[in-house]
Amino acid sequence: MSVTQLRFGMVGGGNGGNIGNSHRRGAAMDSLAVLSAGCFTRNFEQNKKDGAAWGVAPDRIYRDYKEMAEAESQREDGIDFVSIVTPNFTHYEIAKTFLEHGIHVSCEKPFTMTVAEAEELRDLAAAKGLEICLTYTYAHYPVLQQARRMVADGRLGRLISVVAEYPQDWLMLEGATDPSNYASWFMDPKKAGMSNATAAIGVHVWYLIKSMTGQPVDRVLADFAYYPEDAALEAASHTLFRLADGTRGLLWDSITAAGHDCDIGIKIYGEKGSLEWTHCDPIHLRVAMKDGPVEIYSAERAYLDPHARAASRLPAGHPEGFYEAFANIYRAFCTHLLDKKNGVDGGGYFHPTAQDGVDGMRFVAASVKSYQEGNVWVRLDEV
Amino acid sequence: MSVTQLRFGMVGGGNGGNIGNSHRRGAAMDSLAVLSAGCFTRNFEQNKKDGAAWGVAPDRIYRDYKEMAEAESQREDGIDFVSIVTPNFTHYEIAKTFLEHGIHVSCEKPFTMTVAEAEELRDLAAAKGLEICLTYTYAHYPVLQQARRMVADGRLGRLISVVAEYPQDWLMLEGATDPSNYASWFMDPKKAGMSNATAAIGVHVWYLIKSMTGQPVDRVLADFAYYPEDAALEAASHTLFRLADGTRGLLWDSITAAGHDCDIGIKIYGEKGSLEWTHCDPIHLRVAMKDGPVEIYSAERAYLDPHARAASRLPAGHPEGFYEAFANIYRAFCTHLLDKKNGVDGGGYFHPTAQDGVDGMRFVAASVKSYQEGNVWVRLDEV
Amino acid sequence: MSVTQLRFGMVGGGNGGNIGNSHRRGAAMDSLAVLSAGCFTRNFEQNKKDGAAWGVAPDRIYRDYKEMAEAESQREDGIDFVSIVTPNFTHYEIAKTFLEHGIHVSCEKPFTMTVAEAEELRDLAAAKGLEICLTYTYAHYPVLQQARRMVADGRLGRLISVVAEYPQDWLMLEGATDPSNYASWFMDPKKAGMSNATAAIGVHVWYLIKSMTGQPVDRVLADFAYYPEDAALEAASHTLFRLADGTRGLLWDSITAAGHDCDIGIKIYGEKGSLEWTHCDPIHLRVAMKDGPVEIYSAERAYLDPHARAASRLPAGHPEGFYEAFANIYRAFCTHLLDKKNGVDGGGYFHPTAQDGVDGMRFVAASVKSYQEGNVWVRLDEV
Amino acid sequence: MSVTQLRFGMVGGGNGGNIGNSHRRGAAMDSLAVLSAGCFTRNFEQNKKDGAAWGVAPDRIYRDYKEMAEAESQREDGIDFVSIVTPNFTHYEIAKTFLEHGIHVSCEKPFTMTVAEAEELRDLAAAKGLEICLTYTYAHYPVLQQARRMVADGRLGRLISVVAEYPQDWLMLEGATDPSNYASWFMDPKKAGMSNATAAIGVHVWYLIKSMTGQPVDRVLADFAYYPEDAALEAASHTLFRLADGTRGLLWDSITAAGHDCDIGIKIYGEKGSLEWTHCDPIHLRVAMKDGPVEIYSAERAYLDPHARAASRLPAGHPEGFYEAFANIYRAFCTHLLDKKNGVDGGGYFHPTAQDGVDGMRFVAASVKSYQEGNVWVRLDEV
Repeated sequence: MSVTQLRFGMVGGGNGGNIGNSHRRGAAMDSLAVLSAGCFTRNFEQNKKDGAAWGVAPDRIYRDYKEMAEAESQREDGIDFVSIVTPNFTHYEIAKTFLEHGIHVSCEKPFTMTVAEAEELRDLAAAKGLEICLTYTYAHYPVLQQARRMVADGRLGRLISVVAEYPQDWLMLEGATDPSNYASWFMDPKKAGMSNATAAIGVHVWYLIKSMTGQPVDRVLADFAYYPEDAALEAASHTLFRLADGTRGLLWDSITAAGHDCDIGIKIYGEKGSLEWTHCDPIHLRVAMKDGPVEIYSAERAYLDPHARAASRLPAGHPEGFYEAFANIYRAFCTHLLDKKNGVDGGGYFHPTAQDGVDGMRFVAASVKSYQEGNVWVRLDEV
Repeated sequence: MSVTQLRFGMVGGGNGGNIGNSHRRGAAMDSLAVLSAGCFTRNFEQNKKDGAAWGVAPDRIYRDYKEMAEAESQREDGIDFVSIVTPNFTHYEIAKTFLEHGIHVSCEKPFTMTVAEAEELRDLAAAKGLEICLTYTYAHYPVLQQARRMVADGRLGRLISVVAEYPQDWLMLEGATDPSNYASWFMDPKKAGMSNATAAIGVHVWYLIKSMTGQPVDRVLADFAYYPEDAALEAASHTLFRLADGTRGLLWDSITAAGHDCDIGIKIYGEKGSLEWTHCDPIHLRVAMKDGPVEIYSAERAYLDPHARAASRLPAGHPEGFYEAFANIYRAFCTHLLDKKNGVDGGGYFHPTAQDGVDGMRFVAASVKSYQEGNVWVRLDEV
Repeated sequence: MSVTQLRFGMVGGGNGGNIGNSHRRGAAMDSLAVLSAGCFTRNFEQNKKDGAAWGVAPDRIYRDYKEMAEAESQREDGIDFVSIVTPNFTHYEIAKTFLEHGIHVSCEKPFTMTVAEAEELRDLAAAKGLEICLTYTYAHYPVLQQARRMVADGRLGRLISVVAEYPQDWLMLEGATDPSNYASWFMDPKKAGMSNATAAIGVHVWYLIKSMTGQPVDRVLADFAYYPEDAALEAASHTLFRLADGTRGLLWDSITAAGHDCDIGIKIYGEKGSLEWTHCDPIHLRVAMKDGPVEIYSAERAYLDPHARAASRLPAGHPEGFYEAFANIYRAFCTHLLDKKNGVDGGGYFHPTAQDGVDGMRFVAASVKSYQEGNVWVRLDEV
Repeated sequence: MSVTQLRFGMVGGGNGGNIGNSHRRGAAMDSLAVLSAGCFTRNFEQNKKDGAAWGVAPDRIYRDYKEMAEAESQREDGIDFVSIVTPNFTHYEIAKTFLEHGIHVSCEKPFTMTVAEAEELRDLAAAKGLEICLTYTYAHYPVLQQARRMVADGRLGRLISVVAEYPQDWLMLEGATDPSNYASWFMDPKKAGMSNATAAIGVHVWYLIKSMTGQPVDRVLADFAYYPEDAALEAASHTLFRLADGTRGLLWDSITAAGHDCDIGIKIYGEKGSLEWTHCDPIHLRVAMKDGPVEIYSAERAYLDPHARAASRLPAGHPEGFYEAFANIYRAFCTHLLDKKNGVDGGGYFHPTAQDGVDGMRFVAASVKSYQEGNVWVRLDEV
């Protein structure tokens, strides 16, 4: 009889943490995976409290992730995969540990601190026959499945320009840059690595471009801006890029764009028509075919591609938000793992992989190098 | 030691049903209630399958709701409340059964088929010291907590006009009126009762008006339209109303408004300023104070009233959708039940109650009467 | 040889007056009429100054409108029509005077103070073979020609609901109600007549409904609101209506809707699709056909009906505003007058006529009566 | 006694030409200049017909612009300035001729075919004490005067990023690239010069950036795209830039962006707040101050800077469009010329000058050079 549900564990995400909730709620939404083990926070009392609320058995709450990897890999009913939702600079060690214990990994972005670490994890997983899922969220809103398929089906013809952005303003908010602020580590090269805005949000734009156009970004040419003026890492990037087929593009991201919440968006222009999507209105897609009126596609509507339609959980007009976009990644990842477990070849399901983790790091590294060398083209495969 | 988590059961909602998912996901989101029993569908095999996926123990999957009420009321670890997500015409019997067994009730709207049934349930609950929660969803989006408090705090001054609407088009969709269509029962007076659009969606508008203005609707004057032209029940209502303090208002709802998904909204105009919200953009509130620029408030932002801010689960700009609005009702209802269980007087939390169920039925009945009697004023307390 | 250009005069509109500019600029835009005479203001020095700036010969600047009507009617090169842009309560006398002198009339709305006066002017014009044009502006934006034709061509099928509104907030602005304020006469029954908001802006909504649906409003049922609370005339109306074919409708207008500039709009729902337009975005029309995506039509685009397309003066995306909507009325009126002068039967051109002036007054009178008699249906043909 | 009205002539703009209407209507709107002479088209019959319709005396309709410059410069009542609205490649000769005859010039953009020509005209005007006005339209919408002043007053603090765009799709429209199409000359290097999209619309974005930030663009780094793929001149540019103070920026323009009419816009981000404007909604300005809600400023409202408010001709919410933006340039230019004529030092009024013509050409030339040399920085002062 085939397996229909997985078990998963979580490292990080305790004590009211925001991103942990997104993973936990997203993974639970379709009942394809049950939270069964965890090391949610370093405070063991809080850890137990969180685990109890989330239905984790007391003996599967762990004091550290190494103990967890060890113990779970020994159990008959051990976890199938782990969700890693700790700060960036810890991803590499944690992911490596679980992979070494034969456990699949779902990991927050950016994947690692360096391209080399990302490649090492990718190769380790491959060598062990394990899967890695990255949680680049935004491409997984339902109407973007329509966008992706329209491009893939040639509905836009040859692409001409791609324009994408991600403005937000968290760095400008009262208290954001105080050392006491939780998020202030983003500004510290020791913890954040080589980049602030590009690694934190630019990489989301990169993935949106890549997954909507179906093409890798071949090269970037980046210019950075700083806030405060003497910050060690950039607060905004302004970047030209080219896709593999030569299509021209331009992206910018900023964490100092006052009045913008989380306003990632993309516009794709081809010889036959154009597509536009913004996170400010996540359930609609703007479609314009040459010589016709602009059309507004709404999630779940019958005129959508059946695959795109199936990405919705609710009838048209009932907004599905950030948690549901997360859930879409987990649904694809879990279905893929279940197929594997059941020896079925389901053909794979759309979700970000280890290679996307590697390429995301290459995008960050290439952007940084381009800026440091005076705004020159840097190919992603040369960093 | 205080109780921190409840157990709940569900009647209906199995077999991929839409509204059941909203309740299940909404109730689970904050880990304040664990799904522990169910009678999800009449097909027992599917029932067991659904229960297994959702983590319900096999011995708490029931063949019918009466058996469930009986058995759960006997268990030491029986459910604290039941969620009723079946079609309207069954609510009354099911709710009554659980109340009689001492179990709190969360019920889909409209509450019942008649005002009398609604009053009977309300009174039964009161007599037994039990709570009833209705799931009028839309007023529970985070920014509407800001709207509610601004009106209550007098920020708009004396109200002048209230304008609300709920256009959608499900009745026009391919196949909607085929008898084979699941939703076709909405058009059948035997199953839907005295009203189609007003009971199905008008009542949502009524609750939005009532909860945002903080005032009951005193009277209505309604005009109905039909689609198809010879339908037994109305497809649209166009209604004047007055609030308790005499404020004038106007609402319309339609299930034949082509191109509208689920576009409920409200505008409130007072002597000092105005508020506007639409479900098409659920995370923003439009605020305009006399002589100043229009302001767009965004959920979770620091400038909001702290209570309104606390209604968000995610940072600004990360859209919270329909499931999260549901979760907000369940969070309030469960917190209230936990307070009760723990002997704490928490002062209550904003959620729709049995009285809102009764008044909703009065709104529907008064609208129908107003139309039938030739578009005359009908007071809600006279039906 | 055929005449290609008319001469017109203006009564009122001097000294920087707003509405006078709209008429003057609108009438001049297509060079179909040249401003040739005027009595712009009671201050004769200013009158002469204005006339000089606008290219009017000094001998055709008049001290009062009676003198102007007399003199112009005697001249070989006398004006073909007069534009009346004075306050409401003066329209009747001025229009009557020019009609009696054989001069066509273009008149601001509302036409008169009473239905009887409006009918008298209409009949006087008819008796003398003269034309009257009313300047209900909003229906004359280019994309509304598309809307009008789509309804007329049956593209929406049988109509179900019509919803229209006109919120603005001038009455709430700093100083608006001071007796010293120019516009304060709108609040004075002696000068404004029986109505404030309904006569000032509701009548615009009425005309928009009538001209877009192609049907007269048959009856209204109105509820009024007041600001300040003890004002003599209403500041907002909330009105149910029915079209001649029984289509249900609902309209509201308010001059106390904080944060609304001039936000007239209309939504028309039929069995096959819907249309929506708002003055907040005047160059686009929202079209939604049953089962299809929402479409946004843009003025001047090639996919429009050729007549609708011809209503634009600029390429798509170059906004045409209020003056151009005015110009469209004048273009139609002048073309009609030129046809008449040249003995051509051009078939008429879409512009508001004397009958629209009469019916607009009936709409106001019926609304007032409905409110005064306790919110009852009043037919427009019974006032 | 002081002069209050000028006389102007026009070269080009006859026979229903679009851009000629914009100049003619814009210049006439405030009665500061009367169209008094013209050479509107090469067809002399049409020329006379156009002139007659526009009130030009028959003896001031000319067969060619040289004759016109000669004759008008001899007349006592000769024109004060000429509006040049012919295709780009003719601007230089015509402007030079009128300047040599002592007549001020208003000229369409782009100014000339080369930087050298532009400088020659600028220097010739300076040597003769004459004025040149360029008609970069978009910066002259009323709310942009508010934007300009807010930046100048330091309301945004130090600037961080500037993002601007101009997508339109004329090149994709049915028949656009046919040699028979009027606009096909834009694709021909012999007539359009070194650039298509950058010269036609990019230069508008450049001027918007420059006039809103109050800073020159110091350098550009451009990447071009082509449509059709083998076109001689670019159809889209994707460009990084830096302002004089080092502020980073990014702009793109495209004439192959399906579904975009004329959608120029700008976003300016500073340390204290941000501004955003788009031509799709020309009467509003989005303002967001750090830690506050987004504000929507509306043209003509009392809360605006008095200078910005004075840029409106109509009450708030009455849309002013493209013609009125043109009229704002002409109002400023004419007021400046009147001051000069009356020997008054009015301090100048905001309008584009000869230097803006030169710098616009530098922007185009630098963009082309940057692209041709492999996407490298090119300073505007080095081309």
